Amino acid sequence: MSYDPNNIFAKILRGEIPCKKVYEDEFALAFNDINPKAPTHVLVIPKGPYVAYDDFITSANAEEIAGFARAVSKVAQSSGVAQTGYRLISNCGVNAHQEVSHYHVHVLGGKALGPMLVK
Amino acid sequence: MSYDPNNIFAKILRGEIPCKKVYEDEFALAFNDINPKAPTHVLVIPKGPYVAYDDFITSANAEEIAGFARAVSKVAQSSGVAQTGYRLISNCGVNAHQEVSHYHVHVLGGKALGPMLVK
Repeated sequence: MSYDPNNIFAKILRGEIPCKKVYEDEFALAFNDINPKAPTHVLVIPKGPYVAYDDFITSANAEEIAGFARAVSKVAQSSGVAQTGYRLISNCGVNAHQEVSHYHVHVLGGKALGPMLVK
Repeated sequence: MSYDPNNIFAKILRGEIPCKKVYEDEFALAFNDINPKAPTHVLVIPKGPYVAYDDFITSANAEEIAGFARAVSKVAQSSGVAQTGYRLISNCGVNAHQEVSHYHVHVLGGKALGPMLVK
């Protein structure tokens, strides 16, 4: 699957669509999910054009991968959920109902979360 | 929170407890979850003594972080879920009900998965 430069996260990265930004560095942009599933629900996306996890991991170099992973941790810290706990979720492809074809990590917290997975 | 060398995943890494191994390299070990929530449910753990995500990210170097992330992708490929889709989940701390205090990633797939998060 090739990267669609008109996906909504690409437009957010280009500033064509607004977002509620909570963190940004050279590797990642993080913003509040517009349909939050928990008191804290932040999306963290890499700045490069990666469709999903496998694409990111096989295309990005170690510095980019580590930089993105560190950004996710910084978001957890700055969102105030690092101490109380949080869940990281990445939905990849059809069976996981990935909704936007730009790799992203959900950071969820702010309350005791429900089961990890329900049928 | 300091690392408990007697947690179950540490014992698995030391070979003191058996596991159904599906992948191993210098950075990671992956094995089937003993209580699978989906047809494919693999746990991927780093080989170093990291309590949870933040500990891993702040303690490991870029090579380790990228090596672990690549191992997760290889597990998705070798488990046969990369094409059909899969969900990656990391539960960190109390609010996410992290059950074993050794950082781990759940790789879930093999069917259309349920909602990402339920109350």
